[in-house]
Amino acid sequence: MRPVITFLTDFGPAAPAVCRGVMFRICPDANIIDINHQVPRYSIRDGAASLVFALPHMPVGIHVAVVDPGVGTERLPVALRTARGDVVIGPDNGLLIEAAERLGGIEEARALENRDLMLPVISQSFHGRDIFAPMAGHLAAGVPFSEVGPTVAIDKLVRLPVIRPTIAEGMLTSSIVNVLIYGNVTFAGTPADLEAAIGPLQPGRALVLEFPAQDGAPPVEERTVWERTFGRVPLGSSLLMSDSEGHLSLADNQGDAARRLGLTLDRPVRIRPA
Amino acid sequence: MRPVITFLTDFGPAAPAVCRGVMFRICPDANIIDINHQVPRYSIRDGAASLVFALPHMPVGIHVAVVDPGVGTERLPVALRTARGDVVIGPDNGLLIEAAERLGGIEEARALENRDLMLPVISQSFHGRDIFAPMAGHLAAGVPFSEVGPTVAIDKLVRLPVIRPTIAEGMLTSSIVNVLIYGNVTFAGTPADLEAAIGPLQPGRALVLEFPAQDGAPPVEERTVWERTFGRVPLGSSLLMSDSEGHLSLADNQGDAARRLGLTLDRPVRIRPA
Amino acid sequence: MRPVITFLTDFGPAAPAVCRGVMFRICPDANIIDINHQVPRYSIRDGAASLVFALPHMPVGIHVAVVDPGVGTERLPVALRTARGDVVIGPDNGLLIEAAERLGGIEEARALENRDLMLPVISQSFHGRDIFAPMAGHLAAGVPFSEVGPTVAIDKLVRLPVIRPTIAEGMLTSSIVNVLIYGNVTFAGTPADLEAAIGPLQPGRALVLEFPAQDGAPPVEERTVWERTFGRVPLGSSLLMSDSEGHLSLADNQGDAARRLGLTLDRPVRIRPA
Repeated sequence: MRPVITFLTDFGPAAPAVCRGVMFRICPDANIIDINHQVPRYSIRDGAASLVFALPHMPVGIHVAVVDPGVGTERLPVALRTARGDVVIGPDNGLLIEAAERLGGIEEARALENRDLMLPVISQSFHGRDIFAPMAGHLAAGVPFSEVGPTVAIDKLVRLPVIRPTIAEGMLTSSIVNVLIYGNVTFAGTPADLEAAIGPLQPGRALVLEFPAQDGAPPVEERTVWERTFGRVPLGSSLLMSDSEGHLSLADNQGDAARRLGLTLDRPVRIRPA
Repeated sequence: MRPVITFLTDFGPAAPAVCRGVMFRICPDANIIDINHQVPRYSIRDGAASLVFALPHMPVGIHVAVVDPGVGTERLPVALRTARGDVVIGPDNGLLIEAAERLGGIEEARALENRDLMLPVISQSFHGRDIFAPMAGHLAAGVPFSEVGPTVAIDKLVRLPVIRPTIAEGMLTSSIVNVLIYGNVTFAGTPADLEAAIGPLQPGRALVLEFPAQDGAPPVEERTVWERTFGRVPLGSSLLMSDSEGHLSLADNQGDAARRLGLTLDRPVRIRPA
Repeated sequence: MRPVITFLTDFGPAAPAVCRGVMFRICPDANIIDINHQVPRYSIRDGAASLVFALPHMPVGIHVAVVDPGVGTERLPVALRTARGDVVIGPDNGLLIEAAERLGGIEEARALENRDLMLPVISQSFHGRDIFAPMAGHLAAGVPFSEVGPTVAIDKLVRLPVIRPTIAEGMLTSSIVNVLIYGNVTFAGTPADLEAAIGPLQPGRALVLEFPAQDGAPPVEERTVWERTFGRVPLGSSLLMSDSEGHLSLADNQGDAARRLGLTLDRPVRIRPA
């Protein structure tokens, strides 16, 4: 069976190919699966969310992710070995850890220091090509995990802050943790959280979402309904639903809710019955 | 030989990877060929046109297409077996049928109902991942077509309306059926249709295209010439030509005719000699 | 080992798949590596730069590149055999030659004339599908290079002009040769060229870049510093650095220098000490 390498970056359309070439030269049999190369530039949070969404569905393999605003500075390049048998590679800046934990948990972390597993010349600005891609190729080709470099303490790895909703009597307070490409907006929290605050969510139940003013954006109030899927509401109307990951999500049926309402990442929200 | 899966969606850059992961976990040897994941969101017609353009050139295989505004509602997920030996999978909303017919014709249609060939948990909003991708993986891995679910009548499948030009003495009346990414505009009809209306199309023959006012867009009259290919007219000038599929096409040499003239899908046109 | 085909076009998201299908039908075992299909439409220079960036890192193989404003006119379709054992295929318009030379040099050039290695019907506007893709598939499947068509003189191949900086006492005069997707701007010349003009480039050395007025764009003066990598300057600040290819490059740390300063391809620049 071909060894699997998955690959995510914020590089856009042109630079990932160079890394693919490097990987294939080292491991010609690799099955390289592109996850996403249009992560918003430098957005570690968006990259991490994309990995959490995708990696649990990927075959066991080597997973390379590069969203790396600190390239060429002191941040550590690392590899994380998971209980499932994967190795997750990238910068230690919070990008990798939550996704790696969903692959059975992290069993061992190592710094990428073995120069024999990198390109001969290492640039200051393209570690995707010079460090991460060749490491992935060598691991896919069978180099043992222990050879990438010395171990680092798992509890010293950089983590992103975790955002949780606040459950109160009659109201869930949360914030936007993801804005998807078609304008669907994901909130921290699950339907169970919302039910703990406001009681059972029957299809068609009327709800109000209040987005307070922020950074010059005026306050927004959206009246919507709880439904199972887009097609349950009229074209252009909104619904609150459980998205495919089990998170609370505001969407417009065949529309773009984020653009219509002017919503962006981290905007607070209060959800209550109408 | 690796089993072929081709894959088209309107998902954008991030979500297709999750489906690819699901397919590779079920069929690690698959050769997954991406057709297009930037179909305009929810546009069944654009997706169908992209399939008609691409599928006849694909190897025999499993062809998965998901442009599915009705996900989670009553529309049927189906699989179509073609005379060439392909299986075309997707929602029964008109997306698949014309392309499938070009693979030698549809011999059998079945509804996707076998839960053993889907993911264990089926979301309301991501059937690409939960139903279509695993079905494709299992078929590519050798599961017989008959196991996907019960047969459905081929003549009950949803079809898109077919748009045809009107041939009159001295004028062809048609409409825009496709606007390509670089602004080339495809009309219903062929050079033979146009010649039936206005006589032989020699290179350099002067023509007039009239686009009546519509939906607030003012009327447009474009004087152009019949030519074989872009480079036959000056930079920025337009030509009417037979595109690579044999359809009538208006293009600007190294320009964007649709943007310059304000043309969009379904705009009527009258073509006559200058 | 799977034969490698790399693939670059300006076709956007939909048309490359048709070519991929053609190649896989002829050579089912091929490993097709997409380099970039979002080259700015018709920009031979951008396509050539993308090839120069990528091909040296690719495995030995067949490299197909199509940026072809002259499709259907007299420009020659060619194949270039390199010392490394690659074959580079595309239109003879300057797109291929510099990248091919970096694969050990060009040893032989041939015109693509063998109709048996093309699709049966050849359109006027889609030679990527009808000529270049099937040629690549046949070569990857083992057809000898000599069968593609007659030899052509290597010194008759079309070349793009080479842009070089001018070194003077205290000033380097150059111009913008590439604007990357995130706004990093590449100048003709290397750090060695700049040092020849203004002396040693220590990290933190203050520099001034002067962009004279041009085509209605006002003159721009940018004060910046020489640094090794983005993270060495504050967020949003600019630096002049050696990019991953060893060229002089102006970048904003997590910003878009080209947009901020209104810079485009071919804009002249003068670089001097602050």
